Amino acid sequence: MSIDQTVRTAPLADFVARHVGPRADDVERMLEVVGQPSLEAMCERAIPGAIRAEAPLDLEAAESESAVIDELRALAERNTVLTSLIGLGYYGTVTPPVVRRNVLENPSWYTAYTPYQPEISQGRLEALLNFQTVVTDLTGLDVAGSSLLDESTAAAEAMSLMRRLSKAPSDAVVLVDAHVFPQTIAVMQTRADAIGLPLVVTDLRRVTTADELASAADGHDVVGVIVQYPDASGELRDWSALAAAAHEGKALVTAAADLLALTLVSAPATWGADIAVGSAQRLGVPMGFGGPHAGYLAVRKGLERSMPGRLVGVSVDAQGNRAYRLALQTREQHIRREKATSNICTAQVLLAVMASMYAVHHGPDGLRDIARRVTGLTASLRSALVEAGLTVQTEAFFDTLTVEVPGRADEVARHFTDRGFNLRRVDADRVSVSLDETTTAATVAAVADAFGARLSADEARAALRDASAPTGIPAALERDTEFLTHPVFSSYHSETAMLRYLRRLADRDFALDRGMIPLGSCTMKLNATTEMEAVTWPEFANLHPFAPADQTEGIRTLVDQLSAWLCEITGYDAVSLQPNAGSQGEFAGLLAIHAYHQANGEGHRRVCLIPASAHGTNAASAVMAGLKVVVVKTAPGGTVDLDDLRAKIDAHRDDLAAIMVTYPSTHGVYEDTISELCALVHEAGGQVYVDGANLNALVGLAQPGKFGADVSHLNLHKTFCIPHGGGGPGVGPVAVRAHLAPHLPNHPLSAEAGPETGVGPISGAPFGSAGILPISWAYVRLMGGEGLTHATQVAVLGANYVAARLREHYPVLYSGEDGLVAHECILDLRGITAETGVTVDDVAKRLIDYGFHSPTMSFPVAGTLMVEPTESEDLHELDRFCDAMIAIRDEIEAVHKGDVEVSQSMLRHAPHTALNLAGEWDHPYDRTAAAFPVGVDAGDKYWPPVSRIDGAFGDRNLVCSCPPPEAFEG
Amino acid sequence: MSIDQTVRTAPLADFVARHVGPRADDVERMLEVVGQPSLEAMCERAIPGAIRAEAPLDLEAAESESAVIDELRALAERNTVLTSLIGLGYYGTVTPPVVRRNVLENPSWYTAYTPYQPEISQGRLEALLNFQTVVTDLTGLDVAGSSLLDESTAAAEAMSLMRRLSKAPSDAVVLVDAHVFPQTIAVMQTRADAIGLPLVVTDLRRVTTADELASAADGHDVVGVIVQYPDASGELRDWSALAAAAHEGKALVTAAADLLALTLVSAPATWGADIAVGSAQRLGVPMGFGGPHAGYLAVRKGLERSMPGRLVGVSVDAQGNRAYRLALQTREQHIRREKATSNICTAQVLLAVMASMYAVHHGPDGLRDIARRVTGLTASLRSALVEAGLTVQTEAFFDTLTVEVPGRADEVARHFTDRGFNLRRVDADRVSVSLDETTTAATVAAVADAFGARLSADEARAALRDASAPTGIPAALERDTEFLTHPVFSSYHSETAMLRYLRRLADRDFALDRGMIPLGSCTMKLNATTEMEAVTWPEFANLHPFAPADQTEGIRTLVDQLSAWLCEITGYDAVSLQPNAGSQGEFAGLLAIHAYHQANGEGHRRVCLIPASAHGTNAASAVMAGLKVVVVKTAPGGTVDLDDLRAKIDAHRDDLAAIMVTYPSTHGVYEDTISELCALVHEAGGQVYVDGANLNALVGLAQPGKFGADVSHLNLHKTFCIPHGGGGPGVGPVAVRAHLAPHLPNHPLSAEAGPETGVGPISGAPFGSAGILPISWAYVRLMGGEGLTHATQVAVLGANYVAARLREHYPVLYSGEDGLVAHECILDLRGITAETGVTVDDVAKRLIDYGFHSPTMSFPVAGTLMVEPTESEDLHELDRFCDAMIAIRDEIEAVHKGDVEVSQSMLRHAPHTALNLAGEWDHPYDRTAAAFPVGVDAGDKYWPPVSRIDGAFGDRNLVCSCPPPEAFEG
Repeated sequence: MSIDQTVRTAPLADFVARHVGPRADDVERMLEVVGQPSLEAMCERAIPGAIRAEAPLDLEAAESESAVIDELRALAERNTVLTSLIGLGYYGTVTPPVVRRNVLENPSWYTAYTPYQPEISQGRLEALLNFQTVVTDLTGLDVAGSSLLDESTAAAEAMSLMRRLSKAPSDAVVLVDAHVFPQTIAVMQTRADAIGLPLVVTDLRRVTTADELASAADGHDVVGVIVQYPDASGELRDWSALAAAAHEGKALVTAAADLLALTLVSAPATWGADIAVGSAQRLGVPMGFGGPHAGYLAVRKGLERSMPGRLVGVSVDAQGNRAYRLALQTREQHIRREKATSNICTAQVLLAVMASMYAVHHGPDGLRDIARRVTGLTASLRSALVEAGLTVQTEAFFDTLTVEVPGRADEVARHFTDRGFNLRRVDADRVSVSLDETTTAATVAAVADAFGARLSADEARAALRDASAPTGIPAALERDTEFLTHPVFSSYHSETAMLRYLRRLADRDFALDRGMIPLGSCTMKLNATTEMEAVTWPEFANLHPFAPADQTEGIRTLVDQLSAWLCEITGYDAVSLQPNAGSQGEFAGLLAIHAYHQANGEGHRRVCLIPASAHGTNAASAVMAGLKVVVVKTAPGGTVDLDDLRAKIDAHRDDLAAIMVTYPSTHGVYEDTISELCALVHEAGGQVYVDGANLNALVGLAQPGKFGADVSHLNLHKTFCIPHGGGGPGVGPVAVRAHLAPHLPNHPLSAEAGPETGVGPISGAPFGSAGILPISWAYVRLMGGEGLTHATQVAVLGANYVAARLREHYPVLYSGEDGLVAHECILDLRGITAETGVTVDDVAKRLIDYGFHSPTMSFPVAGTLMVEPTESEDLHELDRFCDAMIAIRDEIEAVHKGDVEVSQSMLRHAPHTALNLAGEWDHPYDRTAAAFPVGVDAGDKYWPPVSRIDGAFGDRNLVCSCPPPEAFEG
Repeated sequence: MSIDQTVRTAPLADFVARHVGPRADDVERMLEVVGQPSLEAMCERAIPGAIRAEAPLDLEAAESESAVIDELRALAERNTVLTSLIGLGYYGTVTPPVVRRNVLENPSWYTAYTPYQPEISQGRLEALLNFQTVVTDLTGLDVAGSSLLDESTAAAEAMSLMRRLSKAPSDAVVLVDAHVFPQTIAVMQTRADAIGLPLVVTDLRRVTTADELASAADGHDVVGVIVQYPDASGELRDWSALAAAAHEGKALVTAAADLLALTLVSAPATWGADIAVGSAQRLGVPMGFGGPHAGYLAVRKGLERSMPGRLVGVSVDAQGNRAYRLALQTREQHIRREKATSNICTAQVLLAVMASMYAVHHGPDGLRDIARRVTGLTASLRSALVEAGLTVQTEAFFDTLTVEVPGRADEVARHFTDRGFNLRRVDADRVSVSLDETTTAATVAAVADAFGARLSADEARAALRDASAPTGIPAALERDTEFLTHPVFSSYHSETAMLRYLRRLADRDFALDRGMIPLGSCTMKLNATTEMEAVTWPEFANLHPFAPADQTEGIRTLVDQLSAWLCEITGYDAVSLQPNAGSQGEFAGLLAIHAYHQANGEGHRRVCLIPASAHGTNAASAVMAGLKVVVVKTAPGGTVDLDDLRAKIDAHRDDLAAIMVTYPSTHGVYEDTISELCALVHEAGGQVYVDGANLNALVGLAQPGKFGADVSHLNLHKTFCIPHGGGGPGVGPVAVRAHLAPHLPNHPLSAEAGPETGVGPISGAPFGSAGILPISWAYVRLMGGEGLTHATQVAVLGANYVAARLREHYPVLYSGEDGLVAHECILDLRGITAETGVTVDDVAKRLIDYGFHSPTMSFPVAGTLMVEPTESEDLHELDRFCDAMIAIRDEIEAVHKGDVEVSQSMLRHAPHTALNLAGEWDHPYDRTAAAFPVGVDAGDKYWPPVSRIDGAFGDRNLVCSCPPPEAFEG
C-alpha cells in the first residue's frame, strides 16, 4: 500500500503510517537489502501459493483516530451502567486515581513484556512480589503465585492441583459446596469432564465429620473439597470442622476466599484450608464486564512446587545483591510440555500490579477501613430489612444478603432496575444484594427504600461511627492475625510518595516505550493510545459481567463486530471471545474437537499429534482436554517431518483426534507442506488445530480457516494490539469452522455467550476479558483490510531485513524460498557457543548494555535467539539492533581469537550496572566499552538496576513474599 | 486536624492525608525536633497575633475524591460544546493522543519546574528549542522565545518592545490595523494607556506609502505598526508595501500571524515584518475556554537582546558537550527589576511543549496537509456560498470567511446555534466562519446547508483531492520557503518512535515524580491526579472563549465558586481570574490601584514603594502600570526598614500610590511590622499591595484582605495545586477589597468577565486560562477549610523542621519568634563561601548527585539557598534532603580543612554524569563517592544527562533553534 499523497480528509487519518514503523522510502531501502522488488513480490515468494488468500480482506474502510473514538463513544453510550448489587465475585471498586493514571494509563507499565529477563524487570517483579505478599498475608498461606486468569479458572486449577497431589484412586471425587459461585462450579465442571474427574456438587454446610464427608461423597474416596468464603448466598461459614474432616480422610481443602473480607475475617489457613483461590478484582480493578482481573492461588508450604502459574521469588545477582526473578520455572508448560502442572502461560500481571498498588496505597488500616464500611453498611441494611418484616436468609455475612421475596424475585429485580440498581435474582423466590467499596450511606438508604424498608443515610453513617453497632461477622470468625506488616504497605500513603514509588519501579524496567522488544512469537508491536482510550471509560469499565443484556448492548455489539472481523481475517465461521488467554483458547479449541468427535460417536479419538517444535502450551492443553500427546518429529529444514507424520497417523489412525501445528511454524518459516499435512490428518478423520500465535505473519495474506485448518486460537495481545502488560492480560479467542461452532464455550449465566450445545464455560465471565476488547476493535477499525495487510507485509519485511543484515554474522537457522523467512528469524548461536563458550545468555544479557530487550532465548531450538521485529519498529531501530548484534559478534570474535577469556569478557559480565561502573574495576576491558558501546546515547542510557541474576540460588532458597528490608543490606 | 479514626463514609475520603506528606506520628516527631508542642501552638508563636484570622475558614466540608469528580462531571454537563466556527485566534484542533497521554497527562512533564537548573532539564529544554524552531521556521524570523502567555499579551509585548527600540519622541504613535483581533487591540489599549503610549487603531489595508502612513498617524511619528495575518475578517493581505513604508519612516513592523496558515503562505519575515507574534494553540492545544496556550514572539536578528520572556539557547557543559539552557537571562525581571524588558516570568512551557510535539509528530508535510485541508474546505465553502448568491467579503483567505447577511446577523447566529454551530457575529450585517483541523467535509456540507447553500460532503472531499480546485491563497502570498527541515521534525512520525522520544526527553529531567523540589516561594506541592482529571474532559477542553454564555454555564459556575472561595480564603471582597500568570495579576492589581486614585481625582499618585527584598517582577509590573519605583531598605533582621519606609513616605507623601510587599516576606518570616506598615501607607493615602506568592503560609491562618492589604494577586500554580508544567501554565488571579472592585479587569467580548467600570482586559480570554481552573477548584473541594488550614500548618512545620535540622550546619538567615520561620527558610552560605570558596552553585549542582533539585539560589539574598518543602513532602523525603545537605556540609568541611582543593572537589565537579564515571578518572575522590553518596539507592539513581553547563559561553555564541545533528558530534 502506498501512503496516500493527496490531502487527507479527516484529522489523524494516517493511522496506518503511525502504526507501521518504516516510512515509504525506508521500505524501499529494506526491500533492496532483502533483494526483493516489492512487498507484494516478497510475500508471493515467501508464502506457498496453495495457501495464499484469494481476495483482499473484506472489512469496512479504515477510519481516522478521531472517527474511531467517536464510534467507540457511540457504542459506550449504548451501555447503561447501573449500580451493581449482583456480587458473585465482581464488585464496584475505586481505582486510586494515582494508580490508574500511572499504571493502567502509563505505557511504561502496560507495554512491558513478561519478566523473563529479570535484570530489566525488577520494577514489576517487586510489584508482583507485593501482590504475592498481599495474598499470602490475607489468606495466611505460605506461598502465592503472581496471578492466575480469574477466580473460576483458579478454582479449576486448585481442583487439578488437589487431584495431582492426591494418592486416591482415579474414581475419587472432588466435593464442591453448592454455594460456591455458580460460574466457578460450571468452569470446574468443564475442566473435570475433560479429564474424567468426578465432581460432586452438594451442600457441605452441614458436613462436620469424616462420616458425613464420606456420605456426601457417596462412599467414594475424596480428593479434596472446595468451599466459598463467604459463600454465594453471602453466608460466612466456619469451615473448620469440614476442613478437619477432610484432612482426616487425606483430602485437601480449597477455599475460594474474598480478599477484602479477609481483612476482617479469619484467614483460611487458620481454619485449615490448604489452598486458597479467588480474585483480586475488588482491590481497585474495574469490573470491565468480566475482566481482566487477577485471579490468585495460594498454597501451604510443601505444595508450592506443584502450583500452576508464575511465581516471583527472591534471588541474588552476580554481586550478591538481592534481586527478583521468576522462580521454579521448571514446573511450567514451556519447559515441561505435557508433564507441566498446567497450561497457564499468560497471567494477569498488569491487573495484579494494580491490585498490589491498591494495597500499597491503602495499607492494612486503609483496607480494613474499606472493609468495615462495606460490612457496616451491610449490617445496617440487614437490620432495616428485618425491621421491615423481610426475611433475610443470611445470618453471618460480610457484604451480601439473600432476601426472601416469595414468588416476586422477577418483579423485585425489575423494581430495582427502575431505581438504578441491578440485584441478583437467585431464584423465583429469592434475591440477593452485595455491597462494595463504592457503596455510600446514601446508596444503602436507597436500597433499603427499594425493599420498602426505612433507613436514612444519616442513620447508616451514624452506625459506621458507632463501635457498638451490630456486625455480621461472628466472633469466632473475627480475624486476629496481622497482615501487610511489611513496610512497603505503610510507606507510600501520601499521593506524592505513591507517585514516586510507581515512577521508581517503572524506571527499573525496560518496556516498549524505551526500545524494541524483538521477541519471537510474542509480537511486541505498537499499543496505540487511541486503542487504549476506551478501556478506562466508565461505560465499559463499570459493567458487571452478569448485568442484564438490555444494559450491555454497546459492549455486546462490539463483541459481535469484533468476532465477525476476526472470522473474516482468519477465514473461520465462528469465534468465541470467552477464553481470556491463549492457553484457554487452546483448551477451548481442543474441547470443541473432542465434543465434535463425541457428537459423531467417535469419542474414543483422543490422540493429539504435536510437532517437536510446538509451543509447550499445546501439549499441556491437550492433556487438560483429556487427549493423549504423540510427538511428531521435525525434519532437518525445520518443517514437520511428513514421513514421521504418516507413520504416526498410521499408528493412531482410529484414535486420531487432531494435530496441533503452528503456522507459520515456530521456526519462523511458511512451510509449504501445510496443505499436505492438513489433507493427511483429515483423511484419517482427525481435525487440524492451527495455533494462531504467529497470525501476525498471515493477516491479509492467508486464512487458516480456508487453507485446511478446523480451529485456531488467536492472541489478541499479540496480533491485535492488546498490550502485554508485563505478562498479561491476554485474550485468546477460539475460532472454528462451522462444523465445530456448536461446540464452542457457552455460559450458564448468559445465554448470549455461546451455543446451547456448547462445551460449558472455560472462563468465569461470559465474554472473558471483555473490558479490553475495545483495543482490538479499535485496531481493526483504524487499519482496515488494506492497512492490516500492509502491516503483515512490513512485519515480514522487517524479519527478512534483520535476517539479511545478520546472516553473515550469525547463521539464520531456517528459511524458505529465496532464503526468505516469515515474520521472525532464528539466529543460531550453537556453533559460536561450541567454538567460544559464549552462550545465548551472554548475548542476551549483553544486549541490555546496548539498550535492548533480548530476543527469545532457546525457543524453539536450544542455543538460538529468535527475533520478531514486528511492523511497528522503524528502520532506525532495526538498524540500531542489527548494529548492536554485529558489534556483539565482534566482541565474540575477540574471545574466539583468544584476546580475552570468555570468563573475563564483557559478554559474561553483562549486564553492567551503574554501581559496577562506580566501583572497583578489575576487568580487562574498560568501563566505557562496557556501558557505552556503539549506539548508546550518553545522556539516554538505560541502566539495569541489578547485574546478572542467579536463578538457581533463588530456587534453592525459595522466598516468594516481600523480604524484610534488612535482607537488602550488604 | 487529627485524622479521623472512625470508618470513613465514602471511598477515597481521606484526601487530606493523601495531599499532606507527613503522617500523624511524623508530625509529632517533627514538632519535637522543632521544639513546639502542637501545630496550633507553633503557628500561634510564629504568626503575629494582630494578623491572625479570627475564625476558621467558612468553606463547604471537604468531599471525597469520587464525590468531587462527580461534582465536576455535573458542572461539565452544564457546558454545551458546539462546533466552533468563531475563530479569532481560537480553533478546534486535535491533540495527538500519544502527546496528550504522554505529556499533558504525564506527571514527568507536568510536575517539572522552570528549567533554571538546566543540567536536570535537558528534556524540556530540547522540547522548547523545538518550539522556538517551529516559530522561527514558520515566521522566517531569526530568534523566537520559548513562549509568552497568549497572542494578545504577546502583541502587547511587541508593542512595548517597538517602543523601547524606537528613537521617536514620546508622543510617537503605534498604528494598529483595525482588523487585528478585537481582544488583542483591547489588551494593547490597556497596556498602552498605562504607560501613556498613543495607540491609533485604523484601517491600514490601504496604506502603502510613507505619506499614507504619516497621514494614518495624523502627523505623529510612528513607533511601529501592527497587523494581523490573515486578519480578523479572514482576509489574507499582502502587507509588504505597508512594511516598506513603515521601515522608510524607521518604524518597526509586527505581524500577528497564524502558525498553521504560515505553512502555506509567505513568512512574515519575507514581506518585511521585524517581529511576529501569535498563538500556538491550534498546534494541538485544546481551546479550554480561552487557555492556557503558548503565545509566541519572534524577532529578526539584532532585536533578541530586548525580547521579553524566556529564551532557550545552546551552550556547552564542562566536558564541552552541547547542552541547552535558558539564554540571556540578564534581560529578565528577576535580575533587572525595574529595568527589565517586561514583567513576564511564568511562561506556557507545558503548552509550548505540546505544540512543539504536535509539529514533531506531523512534520512539515503533515502540517501542510492539515493546512491544505482547512483552506481547501474553506475554498469549497466559499464557492458554494457565492453560488447560492451570498456575498462573501473575504477574497483572499486561509480559513475564515466574512459573509454579508444584511440585518440578519443575530437571526443567522441563532439558526447556526440550533444546528450545532457557533459562528462569529461580526456586526448586525455580517457573520464570519472559521474552519479548522477538526472540520471535515461533512461539517462543511452542514455549514453550507445552514447558509442555504448546496455543497455535498463528497464534493468537498473531491475538491480536496483535486489539485486544480480553487484556493484562497493568492499566488503572490504562496509560501516558497521551506520549514521544519531539521531531522527532529521528520524522525518520529510513527507512534512508537514518538512515544520513545517523549519518554527519552522526560527521562532526562527531574520533576516532582522523582523527588522533592524545595524551591523557595515556588511551592512545589502535590498536583493530585483527581485535580488534574477534568482538564482533559471535552466539556471543558473544547469550549471557545467567546462561546455564548448560555453554553458555558458549567465553567462559569466553577469560576464563580472558585472566586468566592478565594475571597473567603484571602479575606478580600472580589477576585478576577483573568490574569493568566502572577505577573499579569500584579499588573492588574496595580492598574486597579491607579484607576482608584484616578477616580478619586488623584491620578498623580504614581510612586510605588518596593522593599529591596521583593520579587523582581514587582518592580517590572509597577513600571508597566506607569508607576515610579522607589526602593525601601531592608532592616538587618530581614524586615522592611520602617524608618526608611517613614522617610520614603514623607518624601513622596503626595504622590504615593502604593507599597508592594510580600507576606510572609521573601525572607520566609512572618514580620510583625506588617500592621504598622499598612497603617503608615494608608495614612499617607497609599494602597497596600500584598504579593500572594507566599500565600501557602497564610491559608486558614491569616487573611491579607483583613489584616490591612487592599489588593493581592495569588498564584494558583503555587498555593492551589496547578502544576508548574516545567515553567507554566500559571494562573494569577487578582483579589481586591470592595473599593477596588470596580477597577478589576473586564473584557470587550464578554460582559460576564468583569465590571463595566473595569480597566479593560489584560489577557486575550475573558477568564484567562480557564481550562485549568478545575484543578484549583478540585483542590479546595477536596481539602475543605480544615484541610487547607492543616496543610498550611504542616507546610510551616516542614520549613521549621528543615531549619531545625540544618541550623547547626548552615546558618538560617532570618527567623522570628522562638527562632521560627514561616513556610520556607534561607540557608546562608556566604560565610562558607568566603572561607572555602564553595559556592551556592557548587552546593546546588552537588545536590543533583544526591538526587535532588536545588533550592532557590541567591534569592532574595545573594549567596544563599532558600528552601520551601511544602506540606506534601513526607518526613522520609525531608530527612533524605537534610541528610544530603549535612553530607554536603561534610564535603565542604574537607575543603575547609584543606584535604582537597575546591577546584578539585566533588562539589565543583558536580553534577557527575554516567559518562564521566565511565571515562578517565583523575579526581582525588572516587567514583562511588561522586555518584553514589549517602542516600542514593543503587538501582534508582537519577543521572543528569550533562555535566555543569557554561551559561556565559552560550550567551556569547547565541543559538536559539535546533542545532544540526553534527553539532552534537565530539
